[in-house]
Amino acid sequence: MTTQREDRIGGAEGKLHEFPDEWKEGVYRAIYARRDIRSQFKPDPIAEDVLARILRAAHHAPSVGFMQPWDFILIRDVAIKQKIREDFERATEEAAVKFAPEKEAVYRKLKLEGIREAPINICVTCDRRRFGPVVIGRTSQPVMDLFSSVCAVQNLWLAARAEGLGVGWVSILHPRELRRILALPAEVEPIAYLCVGHVTEFPDRPELESAGWLPRMPLGDVIRLDGWDTPIQNKWEELEAEL
Amino acid sequence: MTTQREDRIGGAEGKLHEFPDEWKEGVYRAIYARRDIRSQFKPDPIAEDVLARILRAAHHAPSVGFMQPWDFILIRDVAIKQKIREDFERATEEAAVKFAPEKEAVYRKLKLEGIREAPINICVTCDRRRFGPVVIGRTSQPVMDLFSSVCAVQNLWLAARAEGLGVGWVSILHPRELRRILALPAEVEPIAYLCVGHVTEFPDRPELESAGWLPRMPLGDVIRLDGWDTPIQNKWEELEAEL
Repeated sequence: MTTQREDRIGGAEGKLHEFPDEWKEGVYRAIYARRDIRSQFKPDPIAEDVLARILRAAHHAPSVGFMQPWDFILIRDVAIKQKIREDFERATEEAAVKFAPEKEAVYRKLKLEGIREAPINICVTCDRRRFGPVVIGRTSQPVMDLFSSVCAVQNLWLAARAEGLGVGWVSILHPRELRRILALPAEVEPIAYLCVGHVTEFPDRPELESAGWLPRMPLGDVIRLDGWDTPIQNKWEELEAEL
Repeated sequence: MTTQREDRIGGAEGKLHEFPDEWKEGVYRAIYARRDIRSQFKPDPIAEDVLARILRAAHHAPSVGFMQPWDFILIRDVAIKQKIREDFERATEEAAVKFAPEKEAVYRKLKLEGIREAPINICVTCDRRRFGPVVIGRTSQPVMDLFSSVCAVQNLWLAARAEGLGVGWVSILHPRELRRILALPAEVEPIAYLCVGHVTEFPDRPELESAGWLPRMPLGDVIRLDGWDTPIQNKWEELEAEL
Protein backbone atom coordinates (compact mmCIF):
# COMPACT_ATOMS: atom_id res chain seq x y z
CA MET A 1 0.00 0.00 0.00
CA THR A 2 1.78 3.09 -1.19
CA THR A 3 1.38 6.47 0.42
CA GLN A 4 3.32 8.09 -2.39
CA ARG A 5 0.52 10.19 -3.81
CA GLU A 6 -0.59 11.35 -0.40
CA ASP A 7 2.95 12.42 0.49
CA ARG A 8 3.23 14.45 -2.70
CA ILE A 9 0.33 16.65 -1.56
CA GLY A 10 2.08 17.78 1.62
CA GLY A 11 4.81 20.35 2.10
CA ALA A 12 5.10 23.44 -0.04
CA GLU A 13 2.61 22.14 -2.61
CA GLY A 14 -0.06 22.06 0.10
CA LYS A 15 0.02 25.85 0.00
CA LEU A 16 -1.41 25.85 -3.50
CA HIS A 17 -4.78 27.57 -3.56
CA GLU A 18 -6.53 27.66 -6.96
CA PHE A 19 -5.69 24.56 -8.99
CA PRO A 20 -4.18 24.79 -12.49
CA ASP A 21 -6.72 24.33 -15.29
CA GLU A 22 -5.98 20.65 -16.00
CA TRP A 23 -6.50 19.66 -12.36
CA LYS A 24 -9.69 21.69 -12.12
CA GLU A 25 -10.89 20.05 -15.30
CA GLY A 26 -10.32 16.66 -13.68
CA VAL A 27 -12.39 17.58 -10.63
CA TYR A 28 -15.30 18.89 -12.67
CA ARG A 29 -15.13 16.02 -15.17
CA ALA A 30 -15.34 13.50 -12.34
CA ILE A 31 -18.33 15.33 -10.86
CA TYR A 32 -20.22 15.63 -14.17
CA ALA A 33 -19.31 12.28 -15.72
CA ARG A 34 -19.92 10.21 -12.56
CA ARG A 35 -22.87 7.85 -13.01
CA ASP A 36 -24.84 5.40 -10.91
CA ILE A 37 -24.00 2.17 -12.78
CA ARG A 38 -26.43 -0.74 -12.84
CA SER A 39 -26.34 -2.32 -16.29
CA GLN A 40 -22.84 -1.76 -17.64
CA PHE A 41 -20.54 -3.82 -15.40
CA LYS A 42 -17.83 -6.00 -16.95
CA PRO A 43 -16.39 -9.00 -15.07
CA ASP A 44 -12.76 -7.80 -15.48
CA PRO A 45 -10.93 -7.76 -12.13
CA ILE A 46 -9.96 -4.47 -10.48
CA ALA A 47 -6.21 -3.95 -10.08
CA GLU A 48 -5.11 -3.96 -6.45
CA ASP A 49 -3.39 -0.58 -6.68
CA VAL A 50 -6.51 1.02 -8.17
CA LEU A 51 -8.69 -0.48 -5.45
CA ALA A 52 -6.24 0.79 -2.83
CA ARG A 53 -6.37 4.30 -4.33
CA ILE A 54 -10.14 4.59 -4.29
CA LEU A 55 -10.29 3.25 -0.72
CA ARG A 56 -7.59 5.67 0.39
CA ALA A 57 -9.54 8.51 -1.26
CA ALA A 58 -12.62 7.44 0.72
CA HIS A 59 -10.58 7.31 3.93
CA HIS A 60 -9.59 10.95 3.40
CA ALA A 61 -13.16 12.21 3.52
CA PRO A 62 -14.08 14.85 6.08
CA SER A 63 -15.30 13.35 9.35
CA VAL A 64 -16.95 14.93 12.34
CA GLY A 65 -14.40 15.40 15.13
CA PHE A 66 -11.89 13.51 12.90
CA MET A 67 -13.52 10.28 14.12
CA GLN A 68 -13.16 8.46 10.76
CA PRO A 69 -16.19 6.29 11.55
CA TRP A 70 -16.15 4.29 8.31
CA ASP A 71 -15.23 0.72 7.52
CA PHE A 72 -15.10 -0.68 4.00
CA ILE A 73 -16.26 -4.28 3.73
CA LEU A 74 -15.10 -5.73 0.41
CA ILE A 75 -17.46 -8.43 -0.81
CA ARG A 76 -16.23 -10.89 -3.41
CA ASP A 77 -17.89 -14.06 -2.14
CA VAL A 78 -20.53 -15.19 -4.64
CA ALA A 79 -22.71 -16.75 -1.95
CA ILE A 80 -22.81 -13.48 0.01
CA LYS A 81 -23.62 -11.50 -3.12
CA GLN A 82 -26.44 -13.94 -3.82
CA LYS A 83 -27.94 -13.37 -0.34
CA ILE A 84 -27.78 -9.61 -0.84
CA ARG A 85 -29.37 -9.97 -4.25
CA GLU A 86 -32.23 -12.01 -2.77
CA ASP A 87 -32.89 -9.26 -0.25
CA PHE A 88 -32.89 -6.75 -3.12
CA GLU A 89 -35.57 -8.80 -4.87
CA ARG A 90 -37.76 -8.84 -1.75
CA ALA A 91 -37.29 -5.12 -1.15
CA THR A 92 -38.03 -4.32 -4.81
CA GLU A 93 -41.26 -6.29 -4.67
CA GLU A 94 -42.34 -4.46 -1.50
CA ALA A 95 -41.55 -1.13 -3.15
CA ALA A 96 -43.23 -1.77 -6.51
CA VAL A 97 -46.74 -1.79 -5.10
CA LYS A 98 -46.22 1.63 -3.52
CA PHE A 99 -46.03 3.41 -6.87
CA ALA A 100 -49.01 4.63 -8.87
CA PRO A 101 -49.94 1.97 -11.48
CA GLU A 102 -48.33 3.73 -14.47
CA LYS A 103 -45.12 4.37 -12.49
CA GLU A 104 -45.12 0.79 -11.19
CA ALA A 105 -44.91 -0.60 -14.71
CA VAL A 106 -41.90 1.62 -15.51
CA TYR A 107 -40.30 0.81 -12.13
CA ARG A 108 -40.47 -2.91 -12.77
CA LYS A 109 -38.64 -2.52 -16.08
CA LEU A 110 -35.73 -0.51 -14.65
CA LYS A 111 -32.50 -2.36 -13.86
CA LEU A 112 -31.55 -1.01 -10.45
CA GLU A 113 -28.51 -3.02 -9.32
CA GLY A 114 -25.44 -4.88 -10.57
CA ILE A 115 -24.69 -6.90 -7.42
CA ARG A 116 -23.66 -10.14 -9.12
CA GLU A 117 -22.11 -8.66 -12.27
CA ALA A 118 -19.75 -6.26 -10.48
CA PRO A 119 -16.51 -8.03 -9.48
CA ILE A 120 -16.48 -6.29 -6.11
CA ASN A 121 -19.19 -4.95 -3.84
CA ILE A 122 -18.24 -2.59 -1.02
CA CYS A 123 -20.40 -1.97 2.04
CA VAL A 124 -19.48 1.35 3.66
CA THR A 125 -20.46 1.42 7.32
CA CYS A 126 -20.44 3.86 10.25
CA ASP A 127 -19.08 2.67 13.60
CA ARG A 128 -20.82 4.95 16.07
CA ARG A 129 -18.54 3.88 18.95
CA ARG A 130 -15.26 4.91 17.34
CA PHE A 131 -12.90 6.84 19.63
CA GLY A 132 -15.48 6.90 22.44
CA PRO A 133 -18.89 8.42 23.08
CA VAL A 134 -18.23 12.19 22.97
CA VAL A 135 -17.29 13.46 19.51
CA ILE A 136 -16.54 17.08 18.61
CA GLY A 137 -19.33 18.34 16.37
CA ARG A 138 -21.69 15.39 17.02
CA THR A 139 -22.99 16.76 20.32
CA SER A 140 -25.87 18.81 18.83
CA GLN A 141 -26.32 16.74 15.66
CA PRO A 142 -26.05 13.00 16.45
CA VAL A 143 -26.47 12.15 12.77
CA MET A 144 -23.14 13.77 11.83
CA ASP A 145 -21.11 10.55 11.93
CA LEU A 146 -23.48 8.92 9.45
CA PHE A 147 -22.94 11.92 7.18
CA SER A 148 -19.14 11.50 7.45
CA SER A 149 -19.45 7.98 6.05
CA VAL A 150 -21.56 9.37 3.19
CA CYS A 151 -18.76 11.83 2.37
CA ALA A 152 -16.43 8.81 2.16
CA VAL A 153 -18.81 7.23 -0.35
CA GLN A 154 -18.74 10.32 -2.54
CA ASN A 155 -14.93 10.53 -2.44
CA LEU A 156 -14.73 6.86 -3.45
CA TRP A 157 -17.24 7.40 -6.25
CA LEU A 158 -15.37 10.35 -7.76
CA ALA A 159 -11.96 8.66 -7.47
CA ALA A 160 -13.43 5.55 -9.10
CA ARG A 161 -14.77 7.65 -11.99
CA ALA A 162 -11.30 9.12 -12.54
CA GLU A 163 -9.87 5.59 -12.58
CA GLY A 164 -12.48 4.50 -15.13
CA LEU A 165 -14.43 2.37 -12.64
CA GLY A 166 -18.19 2.47 -12.35
CA VAL A 167 -20.01 2.52 -9.02
CA GLY A 168 -23.68 1.80 -8.30
CA TRP A 169 -25.28 2.55 -4.94
CA VAL A 170 -27.94 -0.06 -4.16
CA SER A 171 -30.37 1.26 -1.57
CA ILE A 172 -33.30 -1.08 -2.24
CA LEU A 173 -32.08 -3.34 0.57
CA HIS A 174 -33.22 -3.80 4.16
CA PRO A 175 -30.61 -2.52 6.61
CA ARG A 176 -31.52 -5.34 9.03
CA GLU A 177 -30.66 -7.91 6.35
CA LEU A 178 -27.36 -6.19 5.54
CA ARG A 179 -26.55 -6.32 9.26
CA ARG A 180 -27.36 -10.00 9.45
CA ILE A 181 -25.59 -11.09 6.24
CA LEU A 182 -22.43 -9.08 7.01
CA ALA A 183 -22.50 -9.77 10.79
CA LEU A 184 -22.40 -6.08 11.73
CA PRO A 185 -22.29 -5.25 15.47
CA ALA A 186 -25.33 -3.39 16.80
CA GLU A 187 -23.49 -0.05 16.92
CA VAL A 188 -22.33 -0.26 13.29
CA GLU A 189 -24.75 1.15 10.72
CA PRO A 190 -24.68 0.06 7.09
CA ILE A 191 -24.55 3.34 5.11
CA ALA A 192 -24.06 2.38 1.47
CA TYR A 193 -23.95 -0.85 -0.50
CA LEU A 194 -21.84 -0.20 -3.59
CA CYS A 195 -21.21 -2.29 -6.70
CA VAL A 196 -17.83 -1.48 -8.27
CA GLY A 197 -16.24 -2.55 -11.53
CA HIS A 198 -15.10 -1.71 -15.02
CA VAL A 199 -17.92 -0.81 -17.39
CA THR A 200 -18.82 -1.09 -21.05
CA GLU A 201 -19.74 2.61 -21.01
CA PHE A 202 -20.62 5.56 -18.80
CA PRO A 203 -24.04 6.80 -19.94
CA ASP A 204 -24.18 10.47 -20.99
CA ARG A 205 -26.97 11.20 -18.52
CA PRO A 206 -28.38 9.66 -15.35
CA GLU A 207 -30.51 6.69 -16.37
CA LEU A 208 -33.59 7.92 -14.50
CA GLU A 209 -33.32 11.19 -16.46
CA SER A 210 -32.92 9.40 -19.83
CA ALA A 211 -35.81 7.09 -18.97
CA GLY A 212 -38.08 10.10 -18.43
CA TRP A 213 -38.63 9.22 -14.77
CA LEU A 214 -37.76 12.74 -13.54
CA PRO A 215 -36.18 15.82 -15.13
CA ARG A 216 -32.99 17.60 -14.04
CA MET A 217 -34.06 20.68 -12.07
CA PRO A 218 -32.72 24.08 -13.19
CA LEU A 219 -29.94 25.17 -10.81
CA GLY A 220 -31.69 28.48 -10.19
CA ASP A 221 -34.68 26.62 -8.72
CA VAL A 222 -32.64 25.25 -5.80
CA ILE A 223 -30.86 28.43 -4.67
CA ARG A 224 -32.25 30.79 -2.06
CA LEU A 225 -30.98 33.95 -0.36
CA ASP A 226 -30.71 34.45 3.41
CA GLY A 227 -33.65 32.14 4.17
CA TRP A 228 -36.16 29.72 2.67
CA ASP A 229 -38.63 32.35 1.50
CA THR A 230 -36.42 34.05 -1.06
CA PRO A 231 -35.73 31.70 -3.96
CA ILE A 232 -33.51 33.37 -6.53
CA GLN A 233 -34.70 31.37 -9.54
CA ASN A 234 -32.51 32.61 -12.35
CA LYS A 235 -31.69 36.04 -10.98
CA TRP A 236 -27.95 35.55 -11.17
CA GLU A 237 -27.39 39.05 -12.44
CA GLU A 238 -29.01 40.51 -9.33
CA LEU A 239 -27.00 38.17 -7.16
CA GLU A 240 -23.82 39.24 -8.87
CA ALA A 241 -24.64 42.88 -8.22
CA GLU A 242 -25.18 42.14 -4.56
CA LEU A 243 -22.11 39.98 -3.98
CA MET B 1 -25.10 31.10 -15.54
CA THR B 2 -23.15 29.15 -18.11
CA THR B 3 -23.70 25.50 -18.85
CA GLN B 4 -20.63 25.43 -21.06
CA ARG B 5 -18.49 23.10 -18.93
CA GLU B 6 -21.35 20.72 -18.41
CA ASP B 7 -22.03 20.53 -22.13
CA ARG B 8 -18.40 19.73 -22.85
CA ILE B 9 -18.68 16.53 -20.80
CA GLY B 10 -21.45 15.09 -22.97
CA GLY B 11 -21.24 13.47 -26.39
CA ALA B 12 -18.24 11.46 -27.47
CA GLU B 13 -16.11 12.71 -24.60
CA GLY B 14 -18.56 11.15 -22.17
CA LYS B 15 -17.32 7.77 -23.37
CA LEU B 16 -13.94 8.38 -21.80
CA HIS B 17 -13.24 5.82 -19.10
CA GLU B 18 -9.92 6.22 -17.26
CA PHE B 19 -8.95 9.88 -17.02
CA PRO B 20 -5.61 11.21 -18.30
CA ASP B 21 -2.99 11.68 -15.57
CA GLU B 22 -3.47 15.44 -15.12
CA TRP B 23 -7.20 15.09 -14.56
CA LYS B 24 -6.69 12.20 -12.14
CA GLU B 25 -4.12 14.28 -10.32
CA GLY B 26 -6.71 17.03 -9.92
CA VAL B 27 -9.27 14.65 -8.41
CA TYR B 28 -6.81 13.19 -5.91
CA ARG B 29 -5.32 16.57 -5.06
CA ALA B 30 -8.77 17.95 -4.27
CA ILE B 31 -9.52 14.93 -2.07
CA TYR B 32 -6.21 15.08 -0.15
CA ALA B 33 -5.78 18.85 0.09
CA ARG B 34 -9.40 19.57 1.10
CA ARG B 35 -9.59 20.94 4.64
CA ASP B 36 -12.26 21.93 7.13
CA ILE B 37 -11.51 25.66 7.42
CA ARG B 38 -12.26 27.57 10.61
CA SER B 39 -9.43 30.06 11.20
CA GLN B 40 -8.12 31.02 7.78
CA PHE B 41 -10.98 32.91 6.09
CA LYS B 42 -10.26 36.17 4.27
CA PRO B 43 -13.02 38.76 3.68
CA ASP B 44 -12.39 38.90 -0.11
CA PRO B 45 -15.63 38.42 -2.07
CA ILE B 46 -16.24 35.27 -4.09
CA ALA B 47 -16.59 35.83 -7.83
CA GLU B 48 -20.08 35.06 -9.10
CA ASP B 49 -18.90 32.60 -11.73
CA VAL B 50 -16.88 30.65 -9.17
CA LEU B 51 -19.86 30.52 -6.80
CA ALA B 52 -22.05 29.34 -9.67
CA ARG B 53 -19.54 26.58 -10.53
CA ILE B 54 -19.35 25.15 -7.01
CA LEU B 55 -23.16 25.24 -6.67
CA ARG B 56 -23.57 23.54 -10.03
CA ALA B 57 -21.07 20.88 -8.95
CA ALA B 58 -23.16 20.31 -5.81
CA HIS B 59 -26.34 20.09 -7.90
CA HIS B 60 -24.75 17.25 -9.91
CA ALA B 61 -24.35 15.00 -6.90
CA PRO B 62 -25.94 11.57 -6.98
CA SER B 63 -29.47 11.56 -5.57
CA VAL B 64 -31.77 8.72 -4.65
CA GLY B 65 -34.39 8.23 -7.38
CA PHE B 66 -32.93 11.37 -9.08
CA MET B 67 -35.00 13.43 -6.61
CA GLN B 68 -32.38 16.19 -6.21
CA PRO B 69 -33.69 16.99 -2.72
CA TRP B 70 -31.22 19.78 -1.96
CA ASP B 71 -31.59 23.53 -1.72
CA PHE B 72 -28.69 25.89 -1.20
CA ILE B 73 -29.47 28.88 1.00
CA LEU B 74 -26.80 31.53 0.52
CA ILE B 75 -26.38 33.62 3.67
CA ARG B 76 -24.70 37.01 3.39
CA ASP B 77 -26.83 38.98 5.86
CA VAL B 78 -24.68 39.94 8.86
CA ALA B 79 -27.63 39.87 11.24
CA ILE B 80 -28.50 36.31 10.24
CA LYS B 81 -24.88 35.21 10.59
CA GLN B 82 -24.87 36.74 14.04
CA LYS B 83 -27.94 34.75 15.10
CA ILE B 84 -26.33 31.54 13.85
CA ARG B 85 -23.13 32.42 15.67
CA GLU B 86 -25.05 32.93 18.92
CA ASP B 87 -26.58 29.48 18.57
CA PHE B 88 -23.10 28.08 17.97
CA GLU B 89 -21.97 29.63 21.26
CA ARG B 90 -24.85 28.07 23.17
CA ALA B 91 -24.30 24.66 21.54
CA THR B 92 -20.56 24.81 22.24
CA GLU B 93 -21.17 25.55 25.90
CA GLU B 94 -23.58 22.63 26.19
CA ALA B 95 -21.03 20.36 24.51
CA ALA B 96 -17.98 21.44 26.53
CA VAL B 97 -19.19 19.96 29.78
CA LYS B 98 -19.68 16.54 28.15
CA PHE B 99 -15.95 16.02 27.63
CA ALA B 100 -13.56 14.61 30.24
CA PRO B 101 -11.84 17.53 32.08
CA GLU B 102 -8.52 17.34 30.19
CA LYS B 103 -10.33 17.13 26.85
CA GLU B 104 -12.68 19.97 27.83
CA ALA B 105 -9.74 22.36 28.26
CA VAL B 106 -8.43 21.51 24.78
CA TYR B 107 -11.94 21.70 23.30
CA ARG B 108 -12.47 25.21 24.62
CA LYS B 109 -9.27 26.40 22.95
CA LEU B 110 -10.12 25.05 19.50
CA LYS B 111 -11.56 27.45 16.94
CA LEU B 112 -14.42 25.51 15.41
CA GLU B 113 -16.21 27.92 13.07
CA GLY B 114 -15.71 30.92 10.78
CA ILE B 115 -19.35 32.03 10.49
CA ARG B 116 -18.73 35.78 10.59
CA GLU B 117 -15.36 35.87 8.85
CA ALA B 118 -16.42 33.88 5.77
CA PRO B 119 -18.04 36.18 3.17
CA ILE B 120 -20.71 33.59 2.41
CA ASN B 121 -22.36 30.87 4.44
CA ILE B 122 -24.38 28.17 2.67
CA CYS B 123 -27.00 26.03 4.35
CA VAL B 124 -27.57 22.82 2.37
CA THR B 125 -31.00 21.35 3.06
CA CYS B 126 -33.04 18.28 2.13
CA ASP B 127 -36.63 18.75 1.00
CA ARG B 128 -38.23 15.41 1.82
CA ARG B 129 -41.37 16.21 -0.20
CA ARG B 130 -39.67 16.77 -3.54
CA PHE B 131 -41.34 15.07 -6.52
CA GLY B 132 -43.88 13.35 -4.24
CA PRO B 133 -43.90 10.76 -1.49
CA VAL B 134 -42.68 7.58 -3.25
CA VAL B 135 -39.04 7.77 -4.32
CA ILE B 136 -37.11 5.00 -6.08
CA GLY B 137 -34.48 3.69 -3.67
CA ARG B 138 -35.91 5.43 -0.57
CA THR B 139 -38.58 2.80 0.06
CA SER B 140 -36.44 0.51 2.27
CA GLN B 141 -34.04 3.21 3.52
CA PRO B 142 -35.93 6.43 4.34
CA VAL B 143 -32.68 8.19 5.22
CA MET B 144 -31.41 8.04 1.62
CA ASP B 145 -32.58 11.52 0.65
CA LEU B 146 -30.61 13.03 3.54
CA PHE B 147 -27.56 11.18 2.26
CA SER B 148 -28.09 12.62 -1.23
CA SER B 149 -27.81 16.13 0.20
CA VAL B 150 -24.59 15.10 1.96
CA CYS B 151 -23.16 13.97 -1.39
CA ALA B 152 -23.97 17.46 -2.70
CA VAL B 153 -21.99 18.94 0.20
CA GLN B 154 -18.95 16.82 -0.66
CA ASN B 155 -19.13 17.77 -4.36
CA LEU B 156 -19.30 21.44 -3.37
CA TRP B 157 -16.36 21.03 -0.98
CA LEU B 158 -14.10 19.40 -3.57
CA ALA B 159 -15.00 21.87 -6.32
CA ALA B 160 -14.36 24.72 -3.87
CA ARG B 161 -10.92 23.30 -3.07
CA ALA B 162 -10.08 23.19 -6.78
CA GLU B 163 -11.17 26.83 -7.08
CA GLY B 164 -8.98 27.79 -4.11
CA LEU B 165 -11.92 28.37 -1.76
CA GLY B 166 -12.04 27.05 1.77
CA VAL B 167 -15.13 25.43 3.28
CA GLY B 168 -15.89 24.75 6.94
CA TRP B 169 -18.81 22.55 8.04
CA VAL B 170 -20.24 23.88 11.32
CA SER B 171 -22.21 21.15 13.07
CA ILE B 172 -22.18 22.58 16.59
CA LEU B 173 -25.59 24.13 15.96
CA HIS B 174 -29.10 23.13 16.97
CA PRO B 175 -31.14 22.02 13.94
CA ARG B 176 -34.27 23.54 15.54
CA GLU B 177 -32.54 26.96 15.64
CA LEU B 178 -31.36 26.65 12.03
CA ARG B 179 -34.95 25.89 11.07
CA ARG B 180 -36.24 28.91 12.95
CA ILE B 181 -33.60 31.40 11.79
CA LEU B 182 -33.83 30.32 8.14
CA ALA B 183 -37.64 29.79 8.18
CA LEU B 184 -37.41 26.21 6.91
CA PRO B 185 -40.70 24.38 6.32
CA ALA B 186 -41.30 21.36 8.58
CA GLU B 187 -40.46 18.86 5.83
CA VAL B 188 -37.12 20.51 5.00
CA GLU B 189 -34.15 19.27 7.02
CA PRO B 190 -31.02 21.38 7.48
CA ILE B 191 -28.16 19.05 6.51
CA ALA B 192 -25.01 21.17 6.55
CA TYR B 193 -24.11 24.70 7.54
CA LEU B 194 -21.05 25.69 5.52
CA CYS B 195 -18.75 28.71 5.74
CA VAL B 196 -17.14 29.49 2.37
CA GLY B 197 -14.42 31.92 1.38
CA HIS B 198 -10.89 32.57 0.25
CA VAL B 199 -8.25 31.60 2.79
CA THR B 200 -4.82 32.68 3.96
CA GLU B 201 -3.69 29.05 3.72
CA PHE B 202 -4.86 25.44 3.54
CA PRO B 203 -3.27 23.63 6.48
CA ASP B 204 -1.15 20.59 5.57
CA ARG B 205 -3.16 18.32 7.87
CA PRO B 206 -6.59 18.34 9.47
CA GLU B 207 -6.47 20.69 12.46
CA LEU B 208 -7.75 18.05 14.90
CA GLU B 209 -4.90 15.78 13.77
CA SER B 210 -2.26 18.54 14.14
CA ALA B 211 -3.67 19.48 17.55
CA GLY B 212 -3.19 15.89 18.75
CA TRP B 213 -6.91 15.42 19.34
CA LEU B 214 -7.05 12.14 17.37
CA PRO B 215 -4.65 10.32 15.02
CA ARG B 216 -5.27 9.36 11.37
CA MET B 217 -6.14 5.65 11.36
CA PRO B 218 -4.10 3.33 9.11
CA LEU B 219 -6.14 2.48 6.01
CA GLY B 220 -5.63 -1.24 6.62
CA ASP B 221 -7.50 -0.91 9.93
CA VAL B 222 -10.77 0.07 8.24
CA ILE B 223 -10.95 -2.59 5.51
CA ARG B 224 -12.67 -5.93 5.97
CA LEU B 225 -13.35 -8.91 3.71
CA ASP B 226 -16.79 -10.42 3.08
CA GLY B 227 -18.10 -9.46 6.53
CA TRP B 228 -17.34 -7.59 9.74
CA ASP B 229 -15.33 -10.38 11.36
CA THR B 230 -12.44 -10.46 8.90
CA PRO B 231 -10.42 -7.24 9.12
CA ILE B 232 -7.58 -7.31 6.63
CA GLN B 233 -5.24 -4.98 8.56
CA ASN B 234 -2.30 -4.60 6.21
CA LYS B 235 -2.57 -7.88 4.32
CA TRP B 236 -2.72 -6.25 0.91
CA GLU B 237 -0.50 -8.92 -0.66
CA GLU B 238 -2.97 -11.61 0.31
CA LEU B 239 -5.82 -9.52 -0.97
CA GLU B 240 -4.04 -9.03 -4.26
CA ALA B 241 -3.55 -12.78 -4.65
CA GLU B 242 -7.25 -13.32 -4.07
CA LEU B 243 -8.56 -10.60 -6.35
